[in-house]
Amino acid sequence: MQRLPVRLGNRTYDILIGPALLPRLAEFVAPLSPTSLHIVCTEVVAPLYGQAALAACRSVAPSYLVAIPDGEGHKDLATASRVIDALVGNRADRRSIVIALGGGVVGDIAGFAAATFMRGVRVVQVPTTLLAQVDSSVGGKTGVNHPRGKNLIGAFHQPSAVIADISALATLPDRELRAGLAEVIKHGLLADRGYFDAVVADLPLLLARDPAALERAVHGSCAIKAAVVGRDERESGERALLNLGHTFGHAIETLTGYTTWLHGEAVACGLVLATDLSRRLGLVGPEIVDTVRDAVARAGLPARIPGLDRKAAIAAMRGDKKAYAGRVEFVVLERIGQAVRRPADEALVEATLADGGFV
Amino acid sequence: MQRLPVRLGNRTYDILIGPALLPRLAEFVAPLSPTSLHIVCTEVVAPLYGQAALAACRSVAPSYLVAIPDGEGHKDLATASRVIDALVGNRADRRSIVIALGGGVVGDIAGFAAATFMRGVRVVQVPTTLLAQVDSSVGGKTGVNHPRGKNLIGAFHQPSAVIADISALATLPDRELRAGLAEVIKHGLLADRGYFDAVVADLPLLLARDPAALERAVHGSCAIKAAVVGRDERESGERALLNLGHTFGHAIETLTGYTTWLHGEAVACGLVLATDLSRRLGLVGPEIVDTVRDAVARAGLPARIPGLDRKAAIAAMRGDKKAYAGRVEFVVLERIGQAVRRPADEALVEATLADGGFV
Repeated sequence: MQRLPVRLGNRTYDILIGPALLPRLAEFVAPLSPTSLHIVCTEVVAPLYGQAALAACRSVAPSYLVAIPDGEGHKDLATASRVIDALVGNRADRRSIVIALGGGVVGDIAGFAAATFMRGVRVVQVPTTLLAQVDSSVGGKTGVNHPRGKNLIGAFHQPSAVIADISALATLPDRELRAGLAEVIKHGLLADRGYFDAVVADLPLLLARDPAALERAVHGSCAIKAAVVGRDERESGERALLNLGHTFGHAIETLTGYTTWLHGEAVACGLVLATDLSRRLGLVGPEIVDTVRDAVARAGLPARIPGLDRKAAIAAMRGDKKAYAGRVEFVVLERIGQAVRRPADEALVEATLADGGFV
Repeated sequence: MQRLPVRLGNRTYDILIGPALLPRLAEFVAPLSPTSLHIVCTEVVAPLYGQAALAACRSVAPSYLVAIPDGEGHKDLATASRVIDALVGNRADRRSIVIALGGGVVGDIAGFAAATFMRGVRVVQVPTTLLAQVDSSVGGKTGVNHPRGKNLIGAFHQPSAVIADISALATLPDRELRAGLAEVIKHGLLADRGYFDAVVADLPLLLARDPAALERAVHGSCAIKAAVVGRDERESGERALLNLGHTFGHAIETLTGYTTWLHGEAVACGLVLATDLSRRLGLVGPEIVDTVRDAVARAGLPARIPGLDRKAAIAAMRGDKKAYAGRVEFVVLERIGQAVRRPADEALVEATLADGGFV
């Protein structure tokens, strides 16, 4: 097991990474002295890991399972409100702990419920998807979607611990495994060329679920993200660079109602679009676009999502959290290993979308 | 105009207190450089101050009025969600500012909407009731009620400024003016005997809406609260003492569905009950109970609310945020000017309620 601290003063916490950590859940939670434990998971994860987690937690404190419907389409205020109803019904108090057991959607909803229940109770993130292990469980962003935009309602609420059990990835559907690789590639693009090339070289092993390669990827991504979050928790500067590919990705998700494409798939396509926009801004050469497109394709992810409406995509980006007074700022690449924030003329964005298959 | 800082490091903000501040709203908001302004107020306050505030704000940035229904009964997630809908609809962005114009309910809802919209945008509190000016607008507590308990959903979100216009109290209904005095009396009980006696001596002037007396009361209460919040923002210790009378008060509100009694009225009765519980715990003599009961009565507030169900009140208190694992902790008085937290046997609490007219 590897232990990686996220350094945030008196809210510093550890990310634990390794195989077979879920059976040891009680050992990690007990030192936090909770009065009760509330395991939030989807109806899909409940039979896989929920019951075992519940049994483990019961040795620590009174424990409850809170099942929520699966899928980004249910990541809304109504579902968060149902989690809070369950916390109230199960007599959670200020010293209770919420355990977010599952993928990014569960982490976001359970994290937001924990952030707002009694103005904030502790949450432990136990990500069971690659996407959640390499990205969403770390850094304290929680939130739910609004019909008009992704994660428009939320809170910064750092977890008390993140427990990334590599063994849980064994039951992950192939498509979700690939979706997680999008964020791994993104972290490679943000970190440095050497690390990016190592990630790309590891892709065959990752797709074959080689445990050592998976642990390398999770540790690598978490180390990159933990360092950024430690320097800029509230996204006043550097942390915004982690949104590489996400302005385009969120637009794709908004236009397709969060149902057609997984978040990682939309981000993968967004990474290619953001790199192509970087080229149009004169920041990188066409060979970098090819490199990113190739990496995305090798991960089995969509480098193009054709047929979406250009104008609607631009309108969605204007409503994104990263827009100010209608001006959209993009994260673009200066080179592999160096991203920057830049406003971009609408004409350039439109051309990027058109070449990317938008109509 | 008096300027009182709430010292919270890089989130330090000023409380401005004085007459005729609302017409100067633009002058206070402009330095914050908002991209847009979103004035949240009730349908009652909108015609009184909303339109004038809107006109003033328009000289600073694009401005919008968001009207919400009046009353504690509407302080729920549904109303907060409607405020967020309006923010999205009006294209608010991360540099927009929410202005909470009104009483405690508006401050709580608008503050919570600002805390969670895009994971937090700035809010300026412009309290127009005595209760909000002396208490709820200061300190960053925001939240909405859950059917099972008051303020069970919320966030700590400090305002960027508090603007307490004493002149706005001229239009306040008598009953609401009196309700605000409950928190003024509470602050007196927490501060010191000299200040408490001065507050009680000022009650006739306050009930007659003498502007100088009102400004003294608002400044006195804000100074006491700002000092406590500056030392313990997240209520890990001392700040909990500000809940004097509130565990009983919240139970009264829960039992009566938030509609029969105003918050300040429930708190007034709660102050008497908490002092009587202090006596039963051997902390104060009966003369202190008489003193508090007398102050509450002189303010035109209910010292007794007879006929409520004892067992239901105790059950409600167990569900309160201040309960841990079913054990209820009370804020009680050691003397006027010194409160402490103490658990209390259920028998003592029941006897207190019985003598207080609960059945």
